[in-house]
Amino acid sequence: MRYVFKVAYDGTAFCGWQTQKNGVSVQETLERAVFSAFGVETRVTASGRTDGGVHAFGQVCHADLPVGLPAEKIADALNPFLPQGVSVLASAVAPAGFDANRSAKRKTYEYRLYVSPRRHPLYERYAVRAKGGADVRKMQEAADCFVGEHDFSAYRASGSQALTSVRTVYSVAVTEKTCGDVLLITVAVCGNGFLYRMVRTMVGTMLYYAWGRLSIGDITASLLTGDRSLVGKTMPPEGLALKSVDYGIELFP
Amino acid sequence: MRYVFKVAYDGTAFCGWQTQKNGVSVQETLERAVFSAFGVETRVTASGRTDGGVHAFGQVCHADLPVGLPAEKIADALNPFLPQGVSVLASAVAPAGFDANRSAKRKTYEYRLYVSPRRHPLYERYAVRAKGGADVRKMQEAADCFVGEHDFSAYRASGSQALTSVRTVYSVAVTEKTCGDVLLITVAVCGNGFLYRMVRTMVGTMLYYAWGRLSIGDITASLLTGDRSLVGKTMPPEGLALKSVDYGIELFP
Repeated sequence: MRYVFKVAYDGTAFCGWQTQKNGVSVQETLERAVFSAFGVETRVTASGRTDGGVHAFGQVCHADLPVGLPAEKIADALNPFLPQGVSVLASAVAPAGFDANRSAKRKTYEYRLYVSPRRHPLYERYAVRAKGGADVRKMQEAADCFVGEHDFSAYRASGSQALTSVRTVYSVAVTEKTCGDVLLITVAVCGNGFLYRMVRTMVGTMLYYAWGRLSIGDITASLLTGDRSLVGKTMPPEGLALKSVDYGIELFP
Repeated sequence: MRYVFKVAYDGTAFCGWQTQKNGVSVQETLERAVFSAFGVETRVTASGRTDGGVHAFGQVCHADLPVGLPAEKIADALNPFLPQGVSVLASAVAPAGFDANRSAKRKTYEYRLYVSPRRHPLYERYAVRAKGGADVRKMQEAADCFVGEHDFSAYRASGSQALTSVRTVYSVAVTEKTCGDVLLITVAVCGNGFLYRMVRTMVGTMLYYAWGRLSIGDITASLLTGDRSLVGKTMPPEGLALKSVDYGIELFP
């Protein structure tokens, strides 16, 4: 029987979703919990990888398990075997033909920046300091260039294994709110899929435009030509979080 | 010359503000940074202690330093010598006769709870899960009992060294907001001073009332009699943060 899980994790202590030689991955952490809880070795497959340090509020994954429990109780059976940084928020029987990776229709990521005259220990675990400040209206102007179907090859880090670099971005919304002395800026990006480090490079490009280091013409050209010299710096991972994955159906009743 | 500092810290890794035999305190961390930056051994005095695990957005402290720098640059001189969990947000010359502890007029603390069917790794560093849920309207009813001048001896943990347990609470506000699957509840408490673990026990009492384990009569009686059997459990430290300390003047221009 195939089950589907909604998983949240704090990426700080992990080398990313995917099991690698160096560091502990979220994937192996979940696979070990499955073994501890049910005594079976099985692969846990996610909607897609997240990089080392990237967080997830709603990663979705599936696993095939010979389990007698009611599906919604599997989350409670796994959580005692998971470290503090990972939790299974929900579990259910997967729909027929479901594959967490191939069935995913849209993903929403959020990147968080904070503006403060000095480093702030209570924000820097889940946000990155924008040292030069950031004009949210200008960031949104740059963001609007990304909406639509484009070849994002200029935004793909080397090491990406994707066959095509064409992706559709449905929306990019830049919002800000004041929290005491700190201005928190959130960039929410929704698309049909993302290349390796694509969101982080989009945010870096939006900041470069806000700082006057790139023009709208540069960004438009980067999407037409794939020229990496026309995009901003790839931002650090700790500001990024996978918020949700949409499969076009309600997975967790 | 006496200088005043606004300091933020993530309490997770510290035994609290005050230097103790076990664990690393925020106070000694700051005193070591002062020594590293300026080569002087001096005492750093805060508005008051915070317990192990308690965070601060705006702790205020003072130190007497023979420094030639412009006052607002002292923060930048200290920060390179501080670990990731502590940052000096601002520095200034202290007003005449200023003492960070004795001159404090009001303090505001926030306690954060989250409601989620299961443990959530992205909330539990700065909030505590309310497993039984929590009715915010009922919590506010209990909170209203605390406003005014009362003897809070029932809310003081053993080990408190305060001479009197009479304190004035100016306001307690309970608010909630939805963040995806999670409900975040914030209790903001403003008063002229707080006893050891008093805020955490007030929040535990508000939850006990919301859960039907205590009545309004019990809470009123606890303030009149000091009877500890009429108050709730002391909540864990990681949900608590010192937001600000008010001295009746603007310290950081």
